[in-house]
Amino acid sequence: MAPIRLGMVGGGKDAFIGAVHRIAARLDGEYALVAGALSSTPEKARDSGLALGLDPARSYGSYHEMAEAEAARADGIQAVSIVTPNHMHAGPAIEFLKRGIHVICDKPLSATMAQAEELAEAVRASKALFILTHNYTGYPMVRQAQAMVAEGALGKIRVVQVEYPQDWLTEAAEQSGDNKQAEWRTDPERSGAGGAIGDIGTHAHNLACFVSGLKVEKLAADLQSFVPGRRVDDNAQMLLRFEGGARGMLWASQVAPGNENGLRLRVYGETGGLEWSQEDPNYLWYTPFGEPKRLLTRGGAGATGAAGAVSRTPGGHPEGYLEGFANIYTGAAAAIRALEAGQKPDLSLLPGIDEGLDGMRFIAACIRSSQADAAWVAL
Amino acid sequence: MAPIRLGMVGGGKDAFIGAVHRIAARLDGEYALVAGALSSTPEKARDSGLALGLDPARSYGSYHEMAEAEAARADGIQAVSIVTPNHMHAGPAIEFLKRGIHVICDKPLSATMAQAEELAEAVRASKALFILTHNYTGYPMVRQAQAMVAEGALGKIRVVQVEYPQDWLTEAAEQSGDNKQAEWRTDPERSGAGGAIGDIGTHAHNLACFVSGLKVEKLAADLQSFVPGRRVDDNAQMLLRFEGGARGMLWASQVAPGNENGLRLRVYGETGGLEWSQEDPNYLWYTPFGEPKRLLTRGGAGATGAAGAVSRTPGGHPEGYLEGFANIYTGAAAAIRALEAGQKPDLSLLPGIDEGLDGMRFIAACIRSSQADAAWVAL
Amino acid sequence: MAPIRLGMVGGGKDAFIGAVHRIAARLDGEYALVAGALSSTPEKARDSGLALGLDPARSYGSYHEMAEAEAARADGIQAVSIVTPNHMHAGPAIEFLKRGIHVICDKPLSATMAQAEELAEAVRASKALFILTHNYTGYPMVRQAQAMVAEGALGKIRVVQVEYPQDWLTEAAEQSGDNKQAEWRTDPERSGAGGAIGDIGTHAHNLACFVSGLKVEKLAADLQSFVPGRRVDDNAQMLLRFEGGARGMLWASQVAPGNENGLRLRVYGETGGLEWSQEDPNYLWYTPFGEPKRLLTRGGAGATGAAGAVSRTPGGHPEGYLEGFANIYTGAAAAIRALEAGQKPDLSLLPGIDEGLDGMRFIAACIRSSQADAAWVAL
Amino acid sequence: MAPIRLGMVGGGKDAFIGAVHRIAARLDGEYALVAGALSSTPEKARDSGLALGLDPARSYGSYHEMAEAEAARADGIQAVSIVTPNHMHAGPAIEFLKRGIHVICDKPLSATMAQAEELAEAVRASKALFILTHNYTGYPMVRQAQAMVAEGALGKIRVVQVEYPQDWLTEAAEQSGDNKQAEWRTDPERSGAGGAIGDIGTHAHNLACFVSGLKVEKLAADLQSFVPGRRVDDNAQMLLRFEGGARGMLWASQVAPGNENGLRLRVYGETGGLEWSQEDPNYLWYTPFGEPKRLLTRGGAGATGAAGAVSRTPGGHPEGYLEGFANIYTGAAAAIRALEAGQKPDLSLLPGIDEGLDGMRFIAACIRSSQADAAWVAL
Repeated sequence: MAPIRLGMVGGGKDAFIGAVHRIAARLDGEYALVAGALSSTPEKARDSGLALGLDPARSYGSYHEMAEAEAARADGIQAVSIVTPNHMHAGPAIEFLKRGIHVICDKPLSATMAQAEELAEAVRASKALFILTHNYTGYPMVRQAQAMVAEGALGKIRVVQVEYPQDWLTEAAEQSGDNKQAEWRTDPERSGAGGAIGDIGTHAHNLACFVSGLKVEKLAADLQSFVPGRRVDDNAQMLLRFEGGARGMLWASQVAPGNENGLRLRVYGETGGLEWSQEDPNYLWYTPFGEPKRLLTRGGAGATGAAGAVSRTPGGHPEGYLEGFANIYTGAAAAIRALEAGQKPDLSLLPGIDEGLDGMRFIAACIRSSQADAAWVAL
Repeated sequence: MAPIRLGMVGGGKDAFIGAVHRIAARLDGEYALVAGALSSTPEKARDSGLALGLDPARSYGSYHEMAEAEAARADGIQAVSIVTPNHMHAGPAIEFLKRGIHVICDKPLSATMAQAEELAEAVRASKALFILTHNYTGYPMVRQAQAMVAEGALGKIRVVQVEYPQDWLTEAAEQSGDNKQAEWRTDPERSGAGGAIGDIGTHAHNLACFVSGLKVEKLAADLQSFVPGRRVDDNAQMLLRFEGGARGMLWASQVAPGNENGLRLRVYGETGGLEWSQEDPNYLWYTPFGEPKRLLTRGGAGATGAAGAVSRTPGGHPEGYLEGFANIYTGAAAAIRALEAGQKPDLSLLPGIDEGLDGMRFIAACIRSSQADAAWVAL
Repeated sequence: MAPIRLGMVGGGKDAFIGAVHRIAARLDGEYALVAGALSSTPEKARDSGLALGLDPARSYGSYHEMAEAEAARADGIQAVSIVTPNHMHAGPAIEFLKRGIHVICDKPLSATMAQAEELAEAVRASKALFILTHNYTGYPMVRQAQAMVAEGALGKIRVVQVEYPQDWLTEAAEQSGDNKQAEWRTDPERSGAGGAIGDIGTHAHNLACFVSGLKVEKLAADLQSFVPGRRVDDNAQMLLRFEGGARGMLWASQVAPGNENGLRLRVYGETGGLEWSQEDPNYLWYTPFGEPKRLLTRGGAGATGAAGAVSRTPGGHPEGYLEGFANIYTGAAAAIRALEAGQKPDLSLLPGIDEGLDGMRFIAACIRSSQADAAWVAL
Repeated sequence: MAPIRLGMVGGGKDAFIGAVHRIAARLDGEYALVAGALSSTPEKARDSGLALGLDPARSYGSYHEMAEAEAARADGIQAVSIVTPNHMHAGPAIEFLKRGIHVICDKPLSATMAQAEELAEAVRASKALFILTHNYTGYPMVRQAQAMVAEGALGKIRVVQVEYPQDWLTEAAEQSGDNKQAEWRTDPERSGAGGAIGDIGTHAHNLACFVSGLKVEKLAADLQSFVPGRRVDDNAQMLLRFEGGARGMLWASQVAPGNENGLRLRVYGETGGLEWSQEDPNYLWYTPFGEPKRLLTRGGAGATGAAGAVSRTPGGHPEGYLEGFANIYTGAAAAIRALEAGQKPDLSLLPGIDEGLDGMRFIAACIRSSQADAAWVAL
C-alpha cells in the first residue's frame, strides 16, 4: 500500500521531538514525509528541509503557506505532524483540520485552555482525524496492562500509583544559554502555565487513566519550583481520586537526581496487581493475589493479543521508545486508511482530542489546587 | 562481657514479633533472656516460658508480678522487651521504668495519645533507657544513607518519597477466624485508631525523617478502608511538607497485591539522590547529579564507617531484617553498658521516646487530616 | 540526501529476519527498498512484493534474474540485503558482488566452509562492500564497552564470559509441522552443521571478540542435542583461550526454559570489569576495581561518544533490538556513500567478511572439538 | 530445651569465619559456646576467650588439651566447631570424634586428600556426627529449589550452570602484609593445592549437586593464576558432565572486578528452569516451560514447606547469609538431639563427610585436569 503523504510543522534542527516523530512515522513504512514548515525562521526551515531531503518547493516558510499549498495539490499531504512548542499546537492544527488534513499533534494539547477549546471546536467541525501523541500508551506492555484491567484480571481497582521523575532540570539549565529544550519548556509563554505537570505530568495522568480505565475526578496538588528563578513548577506531588472510589498518587519531578525518564505505573485491584516501568518497557509484573508474581514479557507466554498486535519482534528482542511511539503513528495510519476507505476507524486505543482536553483540565486543576494550598479540585 | 539480663512481656506462642525480638537480642550475644511474662493467659505464659527454657520461677503470669519480683532480685533483669499489642505497651513500660529497668519497646509507642504522654512522663522521670524498635533504621545502608545526607552528599534536600506497600490484608483476613495478627492489628481497641498508618506508616515516616534529618511539619492525608467491614485504614496516601521546605509523599498500603514488605525510600537534594529498598537492603543507589549512578554495597568500596559499624559480614554476604533489628538491640546494649558504667550513652542513632511521640503525632495528624478531607494538619 | 536503493533476497511472508532487516534499513531513512527476490517460490515472491509495495516489475522470481535486471538499470539497486537461510547466502552474495552491488548479509556467513571461502574470494575481487549483520555489535552500550576496553579502562583483559541462552527449542518444535523457523534452523542442509552454535553461538563469539578486542585462539567444546531426533546441537558449552592469555567460557543453548534471548557478556581485566545484557541493552555496568559499581546508561553522564554516535534518543528513552540492528545498516550506508564519493569508508566497527570467516571457523572448531570429546582445537 | 554445649577450635581475633560460626550457632538459641582453643598462639587464645566471655579454665592453649579436658568433664562440650585454616581441620576433628564429640567443620574438608581420608576413617569409626558447613545449602530458597527438582518440577535435568565470581584477589592482596585472609587462602601449605577452586569452587560444586540431585562424573578444567606471584589458582573455568547425561559449566574466580560474592545457580530440565543468586537469596525464579516466569519468594505463595522449614520471618523480611548458615547449625542441633535421644537423625539435607570427600575429589580432579591441559578427569 502506498505510504500516507505526511507533512510536518516544527521539528527543524535542534528539535528533539521532531526527529522522534519522523522515525515513528517511518518505522513501519506507513508514511512518507513530503512537506514541511520545519521552523518559524524561514532560512532554518529551508535548511532543515534540505537536510531531510524534502522537495524545496514543499519546504514552506510558514504553516499557513503550507496548509494552503498542500491542500491545493492533487498529491498534497494527507496528514500533518505538529511538533512545535505547546503554544504553537492549536494554530496549525486548526488550519489543517479545516482543510480536511489529518493532524497528529504532540502533547500537551496547547499552552492555554482557550487554545484547547478552540482546537476542540475545530476537531468537532472537521472530518479529519486528530491524534495526540500520548506515546507511552503505544508500548505493547501498556496495551497488555490496559487489556488485562479491562478484562477484570485485577478485579475492581482500588489504588493507582503513578510517577514520572526526571533529573535534567536539577540545575537552572534554562539559564545556561545553550539549552533550547530547557528554555521553552520552562517558559510559560511557550509551554503554558504548567512546567513538570504539563511536560510529563500529563503523560503520567494519561497513562494512569488509560490503563486503569478510570477518570480522575478530583486532585489535591502541591507544586514547587525548587530551582531559583524557575518560572514554572519543577516538582509536583498530588493525591488523586478516581471515579468509582479508587485512590491514587501522582509524582512528576524534573529535579530528582538519578532519574532519567522514570515513568512508572502500579495498579492494584481487589484480586491482583500490575507494575510497569517505562525504562524497562518489555516487561509487566502481574500478581494474582495469593499467587507468585509473574513476569510477563512482550512476546512471551503471558502476553496476549493486546501486546502482540503492536509488536514487531519476538520476546527477548527488546522494543523501545521509538517503537512505542511508532505504534501511535501506525495506529493512526490504520484509522486514516479506514476513513479514506469510507469505513469507521477504530479509535478506541488512540489518544485524541478528549485525552488532550483531559490533560489540559489536569494541568489547570493542578495549578488551581496548588494555589489553594493543595485543596481538592475537580477536573 | 556478661550478657545483659533481659525479660520479655508478650511474645508467647503465635506471636510474630516476639520471636524476632528474641533473635535480635541474641544475635550478637549481648543479652540473655532470663525472665518473661509471655502471655496474658497464665497457662500460655507458663508453656511459652518452658518452651523458651526459662526458669519456671521467672516465667510470670503478669507483668506487674514480673516487675516486682525481678526488681527485688539481686540478679534481676536489667532490661525488658515489650512486644505486646500496641494498647499494652505503655502499662508495662511504665512499671519497669519506675523500677529503673531499661525498656525496649515495639512500635508504635501506644494505642492512644493519652497512653503515649503518660509513658513519656515516665521516661522523663526514670534513669532507665527507653528504646523504641524502629528497626528499619538499624539497617547498615540506612545508616549509610543517613550519614551521607548529614555530611551533605545530596546538598539541601528537596524531595523525600517514601512508601510501604504490603498485600497481606487484601482480603478480610481478620474475619477468617484463624489470623490473630490480622485480628489485633485491625482492632482499634488493641492497635489504636490507625491501621496501616500505625502498623507500617509510622515506620515509613520514621525512616524518612531519620535519613533526611528533617521533621515533617504538615501533612495532608487521604485514608481508606477498602476491605468491607474493616475498622481501620488499610491504605493511606499523603502529601508531606518538611521543615526547611522539602516536600514529600508517603504511601502505606496493606491491600497492594504483589507487595510483601515494600518499604522504600528515595531522597533527592540539590546535588544528588539516594534510593533504598528494604527488600534489597544491602544496596544503596547514589547518584551525584551529573555522574553515573553508583551501587553502594554494604561492605563494598562505597560504604563508609556508618554502614561498617553495624555490619557483621563482608560485602556480598547479605545481612537482612534480623540483623538490622539486632543493630537496635546491640546499640541499646552499648548504651545500657555505658549508663551502668556511669558514662554518657550515645543515643544519637537510637530511636526512643521522641521518635515514639513523633509517630503518635503522625498517626493523629493522619486521622485528623483525613477526617477533614485531606486538609493540611500540623504534626 | 537521497536514500540508497536497496534490494532484498529472501524475507517473504513468514520470515522473521527479513522484516527486521527492512525496519533496520528504513529506520534512519537511509535506504529505500525498491526491488526484491523475496521467495524462492515465485508466487510467494510476487505476493510478498505486492504486500511490500514493490513495483511488480522489480519483484523478481529469482536472485539471478534480479541481479541481472537491476545491474542493467540506470536506477538499479545500489545494495542488497540477503536474508535467506544460511545455505542460500553465498550464492546470491556472489552474484551481486560480481556486479558491484553492495551486500548486506545475515549471519552466519554460510552453511559450509566451502561456500564461505568462495564468498570471501568474491568479496576480495569486488569493489563493493560486504557487511554481515552481527547486529548485536550495533547496540550503543556495546560500542561503549568496546571503546572503554580499547581505551584501557579495564587494563589487560583476563576473563571473558559470554552466554546466549534461549528456550524456544526446549521441545521438538521442528517436528510440530507449523514452525518454519525451527525447521530450517535445525536442518543441517539449510542451516549448516551447527545448530545453536551457528544460530546464536556465532553471535556470542563475535560479541566477545568485538568488545574484548581479542581473538579466540583455541576452544574446547562440548555440544549436545538434548531433544530426541534433533539433527543439530541445541546446547553448547565451551572453554575459550584468547590471544594474549585471557580465558573465557561460552554457553549457547536453545533448551534453557526461562531464557528468551539472553545474550550476556562480562569482561574482566586487571583494573576493572564490564557487564552487559542484551535484554536490558541501554545499560552497562562498569566497576573500576576498588570503587563502587556504576550503571552507565545510554545517553547518561557515563556514556561517551561511542554510544552517542549510534543513539537517537536521550537517556531513559530506551532503544532496542531494531535500533541496534539499524546501526549496522546506517553504518553501512555511511560506508557506501563514502565509497561512492570516492572516499575511504570507515569500516572499523562494521562486521564484514573477516568476522564472517571467524564465525565459520568458530562453528567448525566447535564441531571438531566436540567430536574429539572436547579437545582443544585452534580456530 | 537446654542449649547444646559447644566448643570452638580456631576463630580467634582477626578470623572472619569464626565469628560467622558463633553467630550461626547462637541465632536460634540451640548452642551455648562454653569452651575454646581459639588460636594456636596461647596468649591470643586466652585473650580471644576472654573477649568472648569464656570461663578462663575452658579457654585452652591447644585443641589436644581441650579435647582431653572437655571429654573428662561431666558438663563437657557436646559438639565442637572447627574453623581453622584447611590444613588444621582433620587433626582436631579426629581428636574430638574419637571422644564422641560431634564435629561441625568448616569447608573444604582438609588441605590434602590424605588428611581427608584419615578423617573419613575417623568419622566412620565414631558414633558422633560430622557436619561440614556447606552453608549455602542452608538458604531457604536453595532448599526450595532442591525440593522442586526432586519432585520433578523441571523434568529430567539437562543443563546446570553454576558460577562463583569474586574480586577480592584482583590484586596481590596476599603480598600486602596486612591481609591474613588473603595470606592463608593463597598459601598451598595451609589452604591446600586449590585456590579459588578450594575456597569457593567447592561451594559451587556442592550447590550444583545439592540442587540438581546429580553427581559430577567428569570435568575438564582450565585453571589460571592471573596475579603474578600467586601460588594457587585465582580463576577456574570448567566443563561438567553429570551422571545421567546432564551437562554443565562451573566458573570460580577471585579476580572478577565488580563481583563481591556472586554465587549463582541455574538449572534447566525438560519442562522448566530455576535460577538462584546468593546475593539476592530470598528469591527463586521458576519458569515452567511455556508459561511466564514466576518469582518465588521465601515466605510467599510459591514457597513450600522446604523453604518454610528453615525460615524465621515472613516474606519480604529478608533473611541472609547468617540465617542460611544458622540453618546448618540448627539442623545439626536437631540431629544431635535425636542421636542423644537414641533416635535416628535425619541427615538427608545436612552436608557431611560424603560431601567433604566429594569436594576433595573435585579439587583434585580440577588440578589433574588442568595439568593435563583441561583433559576430562573422572571425580
